[in-house]
Amino acid sequence: MFNKIAIIGFGLIGSSLARDIKEKALASSISCGDISQDFCDKVLELGLADSATTNITDAVKDADLIILATPVGIYGEVSKQIAGSLKSGSIVIDVGSVKQQAIADIAPNIPDGVHFIPCHPVSGRETTGPEAGLLGLFSNRWCILTPDENSSDDALQKVKSFWEGCGANVEVMDAKRHDMVLAVTSHLPHLIAYSIVDTAATLEDATKSEVIKYSAGGFRDFTRIAASDPIMWRDIFLNNKEAVLETLQMFNEDITALQKAIRIDDGDTLEKVFERTRDIRREVIEANKK
Amino acid sequence: MFNKIAIIGFGLIGSSLARDIKEKALASSISCGDISQDFCDKVLELGLADSATTNITDAVKDADLIILATPVGIYGEVSKQIAGSLKSGSIVIDVGSVKQQAIADIAPNIPDGVHFIPCHPVSGRETTGPEAGLLGLFSNRWCILTPDENSSDDALQKVKSFWEGCGANVEVMDAKRHDMVLAVTSHLPHLIAYSIVDTAATLEDATKSEVIKYSAGGFRDFTRIAASDPIMWRDIFLNNKEAVLETLQMFNEDITALQKAIRIDDGDTLEKVFERTRDIRREVIEANKK
Repeated sequence: MFNKIAIIGFGLIGSSLARDIKEKALASSISCGDISQDFCDKVLELGLADSATTNITDAVKDADLIILATPVGIYGEVSKQIAGSLKSGSIVIDVGSVKQQAIADIAPNIPDGVHFIPCHPVSGRETTGPEAGLLGLFSNRWCILTPDENSSDDALQKVKSFWEGCGANVEVMDAKRHDMVLAVTSHLPHLIAYSIVDTAATLEDATKSEVIKYSAGGFRDFTRIAASDPIMWRDIFLNNKEAVLETLQMFNEDITALQKAIRIDDGDTLEKVFERTRDIRREVIEANKK
Repeated sequence: MFNKIAIIGFGLIGSSLARDIKEKALASSISCGDISQDFCDKVLELGLADSATTNITDAVKDADLIILATPVGIYGEVSKQIAGSLKSGSIVIDVGSVKQQAIADIAPNIPDGVHFIPCHPVSGRETTGPEAGLLGLFSNRWCILTPDENSSDDALQKVKSFWEGCGANVEVMDAKRHDMVLAVTSHLPHLIAYSIVDTAATLEDATKSEVIKYSAGGFRDFTRIAASDPIMWRDIFLNNKEAVLETLQMFNEDITALQKAIRIDDGDTLEKVFERTRDIRREVIEANKK
């Protein structure tokens, strides 16, 4: 599909993509660019790329597809650094969980004759690094593309085919809408999980150790979510600030209403809300059957 | 171990216990008392008990162990109703997720010569009814007993052996401490999951359907938690009000601090919190290995 693919950043997404590209023969060669020499060594040891260098400018040379898979917070810096080495006609994609800011940071650095298609594969786990990658991570998962009216149709089709080659179900969406929907489905739940687990972390020692011991039920699920990559999530919250703060405001109103219902013994309101959320669960299960 | 065991309430816990009691021969016979005729019919059809009646007073007659497995909110009413039919020397246990209120509701109705040992098997799923029960639900899970200084040692030992017979790891704890620890590990996470899923439920239709469609990541885990039995959870929140509101207050302080960090672009604070929560995850995994 491509002659040479360059992957910049070998975290979970980068290293999973490398495995899919090899397995499904989506490129003749893969080059790895990562600022960590350890990661580069590991990538070569695992055979995830044909070359690996901490010099990302070298990594992108002659590449037909360049995948930015670094934390969202350094997209601006990274794209500026590689700009001069991008081949005419090549395609740059990112894989960030935030799209408006990714576009604002990357698009201005993309030279004429090079195409940029913003992507978000909605797949993840709580692990990172070259060894964390999984073959088939994107299989049957959504990948949301947020091109604008100036994006090349040809490049968009190629990127679609690339993700479909990795097994993903591709959808096109407006970047602003993407950021709001993802704030609800992913960013806010992560923020809340981080917060509640941190509430436990700051309890006095005796209570904290009992909380850890009896962590069955809801809390254990929350700790899994709250074990996600700190740098990645710091960058997501700072780069999707507006939508995250807006959904957090809605959440605050709703939790305050539940708090009041508990305080005034209003069981009917609690029951009504808990029935409504059960319906949402059913719809989620239905939607994911299709 | 017991001659006759009466189970009042055939939800998830009651019907799982019936399966364990049969499988592990912990009693010669099981009687089912449930206000729903449908549930009684289903119990007999599935062979979960030797008799089943909507008259709970009848159900407890001649029983050596009486298990109250109804929603927490009707413990007072149920224990009052059965009080006159309890055999001298028999043992009453409950299985509620809230212990101080369960004791306050049940203990005054227990006649002299009958023993009451409050229990909380820390196991659950998001399903209920006679068919939802699972053999081995309590296996390798905690069961917390909260007797007081007046509890009979002999009865306590028998109840311990009963739960161990069901595969549980039994611990004894002070009721007040139990309610605070469970508020953090279970009640608050459920309240928050209900709240965030309800936030999604009240979005405008177009956004709501996209939220459901792209519900991978954190939100889908939250919908699973928020599909838990509405009546059971309404009762838990109303009956552990003080501890739930106290932990919610702590959570509110912590989420407000994160909100501010996002608003003022304080990435260092976010990163520090996210590292701390990762450590808790490690401790939870360690604790559950033992």
